[in-house]
Amino acid sequence: MTNTPSPLVSPLAPAKFPDLQPVAGVRFASAHSGVHYKNRDDIMLAELVPGTVVAGVFTRSATRAAPVLDCQTKINGPSDGGAAFLVNSGNANAFTGAHGQQSVETLANQTARILGISPERVFSSSTGVIGQPLAHDAIVAKLADLKDALSADAIEPAAHAIMTTDTFAKGAGMVLDGDGGKITIAGFAKGSGMIAPDMATMLVYIFTDAKISRPLLQDMVATATDTTFNCITVDSDTSTSDTLLVAATGQSKASEITANDTVFRAALHDIMLDLAHQVIRDGEGATKFVEIRVAGATSDVDARKVAMSVANSPLVKTAIAGEDPNWGRIVMAVGKSGAAADRDRLCISFGDILVAENGWVSPHYSEEQGVAYMKNQDISINIDMGIGTGRAIVWTCDLTHRYIEINADYRS
Amino acid sequence: MTNTPSPLVSPLAPAKFPDLQPVAGVRFASAHSGVHYKNRDDIMLAELVPGTVVAGVFTRSATRAAPVLDCQTKINGPSDGGAAFLVNSGNANAFTGAHGQQSVETLANQTARILGISPERVFSSSTGVIGQPLAHDAIVAKLADLKDALSADAIEPAAHAIMTTDTFAKGAGMVLDGDGGKITIAGFAKGSGMIAPDMATMLVYIFTDAKISRPLLQDMVATATDTTFNCITVDSDTSTSDTLLVAATGQSKASEITANDTVFRAALHDIMLDLAHQVIRDGEGATKFVEIRVAGATSDVDARKVAMSVANSPLVKTAIAGEDPNWGRIVMAVGKSGAAADRDRLCISFGDILVAENGWVSPHYSEEQGVAYMKNQDISINIDMGIGTGRAIVWTCDLTHRYIEINADYRS
Repeated sequence: MTNTPSPLVSPLAPAKFPDLQPVAGVRFASAHSGVHYKNRDDIMLAELVPGTVVAGVFTRSATRAAPVLDCQTKINGPSDGGAAFLVNSGNANAFTGAHGQQSVETLANQTARILGISPERVFSSSTGVIGQPLAHDAIVAKLADLKDALSADAIEPAAHAIMTTDTFAKGAGMVLDGDGGKITIAGFAKGSGMIAPDMATMLVYIFTDAKISRPLLQDMVATATDTTFNCITVDSDTSTSDTLLVAATGQSKASEITANDTVFRAALHDIMLDLAHQVIRDGEGATKFVEIRVAGATSDVDARKVAMSVANSPLVKTAIAGEDPNWGRIVMAVGKSGAAADRDRLCISFGDILVAENGWVSPHYSEEQGVAYMKNQDISINIDMGIGTGRAIVWTCDLTHRYIEINADYRS
Repeated sequence: MTNTPSPLVSPLAPAKFPDLQPVAGVRFASAHSGVHYKNRDDIMLAELVPGTVVAGVFTRSATRAAPVLDCQTKINGPSDGGAAFLVNSGNANAFTGAHGQQSVETLANQTARILGISPERVFSSSTGVIGQPLAHDAIVAKLADLKDALSADAIEPAAHAIMTTDTFAKGAGMVLDGDGGKITIAGFAKGSGMIAPDMATMLVYIFTDAKISRPLLQDMVATATDTTFNCITVDSDTSTSDTLLVAATGQSKASEITANDTVFRAALHDIMLDLAHQVIRDGEGATKFVEIRVAGATSDVDARKVAMSVANSPLVKTAIAGEDPNWGRIVMAVGKSGAAADRDRLCISFGDILVAENGWVSPHYSEEQGVAYMKNQDISINIDMGIGTGRAIVWTCDLTHRYIEINADYRS
């Protein structure tokens, strides 16, 4: 079964899926179960060797899906023996009552049986439509095939199998020089709409052969989430299924990672940021990648409020879609954010072009400059509140007709 | 100069502007100044007799416009002599620095001179593009014409003159039997996009000949705002110019309104609600009028959080545009709202059709029922959180291609 991407590929898509190095101790397989999609792979299995530690962060939605609740329980459980990640696309198994929990248990039990591991070490995720029963038997029927297909090199098809409205598969990785050997990290993500993560994001899976304790890995993952996946928004809507799982197999010959290992910490952060940016570049209907930097706020919290208010403003996002340097809408979004602001100290720039200062348009700004700047594919909006030292950076995309097309007719 | 409505009129527009009775002590005039629009009236003057008290509520945006700041100062000032409301459309005079303040002062001084009143009693508003200097001289040049044209019957053209992206003029009124005589109330509003009022709304002007003290009028207006204009959202974006002004001329023969006068209080509320609903019915690109009722929350505050989260969800709004009964997105929006929720106690209904209960789709629900219901022009979404007694009702519209069209190309 081949993976066919959606007919329309985001204009912001990278040229190709990155060349990711195999991670010792991890094997992947994907297949077609027919839970929802026809003619494409829709399930993915990652098998993890004994000794693997798993860290994760999850959506804080009050209506989170059955597999998320299950993962949250297991993430703090025992780490003995092998482990597995099992993911299906097309059905989120969210708001599916007792049936949803039974699906999760069945999938964990059957996967555990086939791989010879404990069900407590099977982490499953589901993504797609909310509120429909998951036909888990169709997935169970493919588990033996998945096991037979497991391969250390099959990460790219796995990244394809978890896509829903995504138009390209999102991967990122790195090989580090550790103390005594190489350390490899490789991961992938899916996400395109319903993207305004709260604590975690969409579905993200990252694998490394590093030796690292579970508490330290969890700490590094949670910290990096705050400045990566928690700083992106496509449409302000938060999924019921957001899940980020990071598995460290300990197979590298490099010595164990410590809390002071800034190289590994930075690499993990950069890979998470790369994947987060790819989610935005595949934002539903996106034609522009937008970075919003806020400085000079009274606190980092206030800076984030301002940045998210701008990033989620439909009027700002439609102006960007129309390549209209309508900075008045940015002023509006700053004003409604709830953050402390002094209108007359606010400075707004597009890239390096100073647009507004001293409570009005800058005398150095010309509309022609703004119009020319907005034709760029990557847009940078810089806001200096001028009243403190709080900072934040968030990323978003524009709001286009394509978003409406995708979402006014997704389920039917 | 005739008023030409926008070429596309909202499918949710009322059949016609209501027949509003003249309010003793108020005269209106409108004219074309050319500040921004060609070939339509763009300024409106309302003259108010001596003895008129004025109440008002305003946006809480941190970047509010110069005329809003000016009104906020004057609203608590002296009530001697006549008063006036002066409004222009096409330019919001927002984020226009010192020039903006000068424009407001010039307009107040010149209007005061021509009408023979104090500048402290001239309340001005501006609506339209943010960040461009207001050509106030063009308005001043028309003040004498406006004075000559003042008429007690000219409320409908006045309602037209303040429109921006509105596709119809919004009016509402009532005549009450007061103690000793009739009391007339008549008002109008504008607003279509950038509608998520905070404390007040767009531009709304209401006139009555009731005798009432300023503190009591202010109290009634502020209270009614909380359940009317503060409960609507088109696009979650909050204007820098939101202004609601209510003038009571005291010319009615009915005795003075007291705090216990529930008839007048209810009439004022109903007119404000009517105007708020008309703003939603003219929401940019709207094809559906949506009422969201939340009950059973742990508090009214939480109920409002849930209702607004659903009302502002782009995924819910696009589903409604596509007539897709995608109740899973409502579950999502409840989950992300930040309000206390128990997934398994949540009930969701479309109108009288029970859709979801006990953490899953209701066994009595059929997709056909949902599909048929969503074809209605007025949609009612009822959410029972099942965990308390908190309630809220908010109103919104759907999110369509037309919203993108209007806003990706508004300024250029």
